[in-house]
Amino acid sequence: MADIKEKINSANKEVAQILMTATPIWVGCKPALEVIPGMTRTTILHAGPPIAWEMMCTPMRKGVLGALLYEGLATDFREAEGLLEAGEVRLAPCHDFNTVGGMTGITSASMPVFIVHNTRHDTFAYCAPHEGSSPKGLGWGTNDEETLEHTRWMQDELGPVLDAALRAHGGINLREIIGRAIQMGDELHGRCGAATGLITRELAPHLVRLDLPRDMTARVLEFLLDSDIFALHVIMAAARSMVEPAKGVPYSSVVTTMARNGVEFGIKISALKERWFTGRAQTIKTVFFSSQWTDAVAAPDIGDSSIVETIGLGGMIHACSPAQEYAFGGMYADALTKTQDAYAMCVTEHEAWTIPNLDFRGLPLGIDIRKVIDLGVTPILDTATAHVEGGMIGIGEARAPLEAFEQALKAFGQELGLTA
Amino acid sequence: MADIKEKINSANKEVAQILMTATPIWVGCKPALEVIPGMTRTTILHAGPPIAWEMMCTPMRKGVLGALLYEGLATDFREAEGLLEAGEVRLAPCHDFNTVGGMTGITSASMPVFIVHNTRHDTFAYCAPHEGSSPKGLGWGTNDEETLEHTRWMQDELGPVLDAALRAHGGINLREIIGRAIQMGDELHGRCGAATGLITRELAPHLVRLDLPRDMTARVLEFLLDSDIFALHVIMAAARSMVEPAKGVPYSSVVTTMARNGVEFGIKISALKERWFTGRAQTIKTVFFSSQWTDAVAAPDIGDSSIVETIGLGGMIHACSPAQEYAFGGMYADALTKTQDAYAMCVTEHEAWTIPNLDFRGLPLGIDIRKVIDLGVTPILDTATAHVEGGMIGIGEARAPLEAFEQALKAFGQELGLTA
Repeated sequence: MADIKEKINSANKEVAQILMTATPIWVGCKPALEVIPGMTRTTILHAGPPIAWEMMCTPMRKGVLGALLYEGLATDFREAEGLLEAGEVRLAPCHDFNTVGGMTGITSASMPVFIVHNTRHDTFAYCAPHEGSSPKGLGWGTNDEETLEHTRWMQDELGPVLDAALRAHGGINLREIIGRAIQMGDELHGRCGAATGLITRELAPHLVRLDLPRDMTARVLEFLLDSDIFALHVIMAAARSMVEPAKGVPYSSVVTTMARNGVEFGIKISALKERWFTGRAQTIKTVFFSSQWTDAVAAPDIGDSSIVETIGLGGMIHACSPAQEYAFGGMYADALTKTQDAYAMCVTEHEAWTIPNLDFRGLPLGIDIRKVIDLGVTPILDTATAHVEGGMIGIGEARAPLEAFEQALKAFGQELGLTA
Repeated sequence: MADIKEKINSANKEVAQILMTATPIWVGCKPALEVIPGMTRTTILHAGPPIAWEMMCTPMRKGVLGALLYEGLATDFREAEGLLEAGEVRLAPCHDFNTVGGMTGITSASMPVFIVHNTRHDTFAYCAPHEGSSPKGLGWGTNDEETLEHTRWMQDELGPVLDAALRAHGGINLREIIGRAIQMGDELHGRCGAATGLITRELAPHLVRLDLPRDMTARVLEFLLDSDIFALHVIMAAARSMVEPAKGVPYSSVVTTMARNGVEFGIKISALKERWFTGRAQTIKTVFFSSQWTDAVAAPDIGDSSIVETIGLGGMIHACSPAQEYAFGGMYADALTKTQDAYAMCVTEHEAWTIPNLDFRGLPLGIDIRKVIDLGVTPILDTATAHVEGGMIGIGEARAPLEAFEQALKAFGQELGLTA
C-alpha cells in the first residue's frame, strides 16, 4: 500500500509538473475544417462528455440545428432534424478533437477557431471565439437569423483579422498573459477584462499595420472593447493545450478534464486517459440579467469552459478576484475560504502564476480526486447561465457534482487492483 | 469652539463632495503653448512648490537646460544658463498653470500635454506624457541628444496621434477608467497597467480609422504596449482637474495639492487657497533598477505625481494593489495597514471608487490635515527615484514630511483666529 501511495503521489507530481511547465502560445485563428485534425463538413462538435442527439438539452439541440443551417447542410430545421435522425451528421464532443467550446460548445466546419500551440509539449488546441456581448449565438443555444448573421461576421471578419494580426505578431504567450491577468483581478472565467486588455495591447500595433480595410479592423477592435470576456475562449484553448500532455500518466489521480454538456458533468483523470466519469449537471447559482428570469427557466450547468478550473483558474482562485465573489453575494473572506478549499484539493502550487492577495502564493494546481473525496468538497465552476429554451440569461457559479469524482476514484482503484 | 468644529467638518464634507462628484474627461493632447492659459515661449514649468533656479536640484536644473535647448532658446548649455541668470526665462510651478508634471515636471511651450476637462466643475488641467520605458527624458533630469530626440518624437508623433484619436473618440471618461482600474490591481501611481489597457482598448478602434500613416499609428500603439505606466500622466491630469474646484472653500482643512520639487515637499489646503506649506523633500525607499545604484546617489522625492494621492489613489490604497506593497518587501497585511492609516486621515469614502479587497468599501477621500496631525502619520507617496545627477534609477515609496502639515495647521488656526 505504502508503495502504491508513493507511486500515485509521484505520478501526480509529474502531472502537475507538466501542467506547470506548459507554454501555450496563441498562434492563429482559422476555420475549424482547415486546422482541427479529423474535422469534416458533416461533423458538429458539442461541449461536455458524449451525448446522443435525443438526450441533448434544448439549447444544445438548437445550437446543432443552427449549425446545420449555417453550414448549408440543411435549408430548414425540419430537414436538419431529418439528417440527425438519419445519422447523417457526426456529433462528437469538442474534447475528442483537441477542442473546447463555450456553453453548448457548438463548433462546425466553417467556424473560426483560435489555435493555441503548447510549445513546451508540442500540442495544439482549438476554441471558437466567444460571441461577445451579442445576445445571440449558437453557443447560447439560439439559432435565428440574427444568430447566424453574428456567426457569419465572426467567420468573415473577426477570424481572418485576428489570424492576420497573430501571424504578424508571431504568437502571444498566454503563459505570461495568464500570470499577469490573475494579478489584475481576473480569475479568467467570469472576469477576463485584464487579459482582454493585455491581448488588445499586444495585437493593436499589428492590427494597425495590416493591409486590410480600416473599418474591418476597427470593428474587430470594437468587438474587443465591447467584450471584457473576449479572452476567455483564448484561455480555454490554452488550457486545453496544457491538459493533453498531462493525460495517460500511470498511477496519476489528477483531473485532466472537466466539462459539461447541460445534462451531465464529466471528468477525466490522467491514469485513465480518455475515460469519462460523470454526474448530473448541476443547478447554477445565477445572477440573472433581468428580473423576468428565475431558476425555473435556467438550464443546468453547460460548457467546456471548466477546462480553466482544471488548470487552477476561475472558481479555484476567487482570492484573485473578490469582484467575482461579490457579484454572487459573497465577501472577501468567502473568496479566501473557497480558494483555501481549492488548495486542499490540489497536488501543488504553481511556480509562476501567483496570487497577490495571498502574498504571491502560487495558485492551486493539479486537482487530485482523492483529495476531493477526502475533503467532500468539489471544485467551483464559474460560468454563465443559459435559458432552458436557449439564450444567455445570467452569470453564475456551480459546484461540480461529487458523483463524478466518486466514480473516477472507484475506477482508479479498480485499475490499480485495489478493489474488485 | 463647537461651532467652528462644525463649520470645519461641514466645509470638509463639501470639499470631499466636490472631489467625489468630479468627472474628468480626457479630451485631447496639444502643444502646451496652444492650450495652457498664460503659457509663453519663454516659460518653463517645473514640479512642486516654487523654487528659484539657484536652489533647484541637479535633475531639475538639467531638465530646465534641456528644455531651453529643445525650444531653441539657447544653442548650448552655457547660453541657456546665461538666460536663466539674466532672468530672461520665466520659471514657474506647473501647478500655477493648472498643470502637473512627472518627476522634474519640466514642461515647455512645444511639448504636448494631455488635456483633461472636469465637466462637472468645468475646469481644465494638463500634463505632459510620461516618457514611457525610455531611460532618457527631461522628466528624469537627462538632457542629452537622445533625451531631446525622444521629446521630439512625443511632440511630432505621440501627441498628434493621441489628439486625433481622442477627438474621434469624443473623450475618455477617466472617472470610469479610475473606478475600473483600481479593481484590477492598479493603485494608479506605481501600477497603471490596467488603466493603460483600458485606455488602449478605448483608443484602438479610433486609431485604426485615423487617416494617418500606419507606421506612425503603430508606433504609438507600441509605445502604449511597451509602457504599463503610460496611464499615470493621464490620471495625474485628471486629478489636477478635480482638485481645482475644491480650492477656496472657507473653513476647509482638506488637502488640495501635494507636490515635490526635489528640495521641498509642499501642500495646499482648501481654505488657504494657493498658499504652499512645505517641508523637506524626503528620502525615497527605493528598489533600484541596478545594483550599481544605492541611496547615496538617489535624489530626494520629486514630482507632481503625488496629486494622485491627493485624490485617494497611489500610496493611499495599497489594499488595491498588494503587488505594489510586495515590490518593496511588504506583505498583504502591510498593504491593509497602510490603507487603514489612509482612512484615518480622510474625511470620507468615495461612493464610486471602491476597493474589492475591502468588500468594496469606497476609497479614502479628502485628506484632513487635522487628522494627519492627530494620527502622527502622513500619506505615503508611491514614486520613482531619480539619480542625483539625473536619470531614473528605481521605483520607490516616500512619506510626506509631517512638517508641511504642521505648518498648514498653524496657518489654518491663525486664519480662523484660533491662534495669534
